[in-house]
Amino acid sequence: MNELELIKSLVAGLPQNDSVVVGPGDDCAVLDCGIPGRWLLLKTDAVVEGVHFTRETPAAQVGRKALARCLSDIAAMGGTAAHAVITLALPQDFTPAYVQELYQGLNALAREHGVAIVGGETTTNAERYLVSVALTGWVDRQLCLLRSGARPGQAIFVTGELGGSLAGRHLDFEPRLAEGRWLAAHFKPTAMIDLSDGLASDLRHLLAFGGLGADLLETAIPVSRAAKVRARQSTLAKPPLVAALTDGEDFELLFTVATTRAVPLVDAWKAAFPKVRLSCIGRITPQPGLRVRTRTGVKEFGGHGYIHFS
Amino acid sequence: MNELELIKSLVAGLPQNDSVVVGPGDDCAVLDCGIPGRWLLLKTDAVVEGVHFTRETPAAQVGRKALARCLSDIAAMGGTAAHAVITLALPQDFTPAYVQELYQGLNALAREHGVAIVGGETTTNAERYLVSVALTGWVDRQLCLLRSGARPGQAIFVTGELGGSLAGRHLDFEPRLAEGRWLAAHFKPTAMIDLSDGLASDLRHLLAFGGLGADLLETAIPVSRAAKVRARQSTLAKPPLVAALTDGEDFELLFTVATTRAVPLVDAWKAAFPKVRLSCIGRITPQPGLRVRTRTGVKEFGGHGYIHFS
Repeated sequence: MNELELIKSLVAGLPQNDSVVVGPGDDCAVLDCGIPGRWLLLKTDAVVEGVHFTRETPAAQVGRKALARCLSDIAAMGGTAAHAVITLALPQDFTPAYVQELYQGLNALAREHGVAIVGGETTTNAERYLVSVALTGWVDRQLCLLRSGARPGQAIFVTGELGGSLAGRHLDFEPRLAEGRWLAAHFKPTAMIDLSDGLASDLRHLLAFGGLGADLLETAIPVSRAAKVRARQSTLAKPPLVAALTDGEDFELLFTVATTRAVPLVDAWKAAFPKVRLSCIGRITPQPGLRVRTRTGVKEFGGHGYIHFS
Repeated sequence: MNELELIKSLVAGLPQNDSVVVGPGDDCAVLDCGIPGRWLLLKTDAVVEGVHFTRETPAAQVGRKALARCLSDIAAMGGTAAHAVITLALPQDFTPAYVQELYQGLNALAREHGVAIVGGETTTNAERYLVSVALTGWVDRQLCLLRSGARPGQAIFVTGELGGSLAGRHLDFEPRLAEGRWLAAHFKPTAMIDLSDGLASDLRHLLAFGGLGADLLETAIPVSRAAKVRARQSTLAKPPLVAALTDGEDFELLFTVATTRAVPLVDAWKAAFPKVRLSCIGRITPQPGLRVRTRTGVKEFGGHGYIHFS
């Protein structure tokens, strides 16, 4: 049983109740609390030393990242974040200064987004730091964006630049909350997700709902400078395009819109977010699979990464 | 800087917002979401292998305990639990069967209390299992019970029996949700808390708000059978009364009521919860400190456990 099969078996058994509009499987849970016009969003995520950061990472960036990852999920629903609670697991050799710094980074980002930190639990985890964040948010019922609405022919967009996040951006990325709400309000994307596992993986989450596929255009994919630099520095590094397709932790927004909205969107975006790149990278197809159109032809992008990509 | 000082310094710096009715420092956060008559409750808690359970603990009991601890905090507000999200950190040698069993225990308890499990995150924690739960709930605005309302002269009550939880009850205790709501609706306690750190420590949390103290009656404190057995089995074990005062993880409700309500409460409780013991263990005093009246006189119960208790 692999990880995906395990998660699938777990999700199938989870108890639900009448208030659940969207349960596990989207960026956030969507909950009907009887508030006219609004739904409650709920999300949890964690960062672990040795996986998402190292002992050398400045503690303020660790705290910031722990919250930013959850904020990115609220952004992907078109929502506004509201309250967070924090579980902090500390190794035996923790220092109070580290914990205070961690909270400084977390608090600063919370303040930027109007999030109240309303509770926490501190516990022991002998070998390493672990920070788990649970975050609530609100979304207008008419403007809630799910992963499930992409249809054949629709245009695929992505914010920012992709790949090479490990060089630093995974610690200081900006969760796209304003962008997510603006998109929901003005261009109601048919589907949206935040990029945590890498463009190819996360795009497949959108496609899976309709048994759909996608044609991407190589030259349209916004490859980050970090991915290009890394490829130049080491022959062992992924080629830049592959990095943009498969590196995790970009935390950009990936979404689909009707083709008729694509050009107006590009124009309006430039005026609204002049500093954030927006790229139309391809379109949804009725044929399953992920294809990349390059100068030398169309290449199928395989199921589990870049092994079929030459 | 000790743990309490660290937490105090962290709590002082946490950002809040207009929706926060009660922030960090009570059993749950209390949030005003603009719903007439109701407040949202939010809580997080975690269990860690080696601290709250061992590798030998049946996985179903680990999952159950992780959720039950949070449910107990909702109970202490007089609330009803609604939605949970789970962070599960897995060691390198985890087995899918363990994870499935863990969720079976968690799901079964969630179903008992009508809680929907609406999301989760699975991550790696090389050496040990860790389960963090975040739980939402609802409470009637008129019936929300805080830690802060105890006044001199009021009677102190506790549900169930105390001490020796490590012998097994910490894995299968029943969160007192029905009892908490019933108390709030019929006898509106002036303060309530759930017992996680031990009677003496948690009672001090109630007393701290008003600079108050308490007189307890030795013969009224409901010592569990497990605490008595343990004391008989080992000369190194705490005396039973000390165990009842200082052992953690009882997860019973501790609360105060006006003295005029004490007798009617005891009568009504017997009819409502015939299987759950309720004990009036003493009263709140204007003099700070914790005193226990024994057969041989009144003894001061010291600040940091039982070192001043002979």
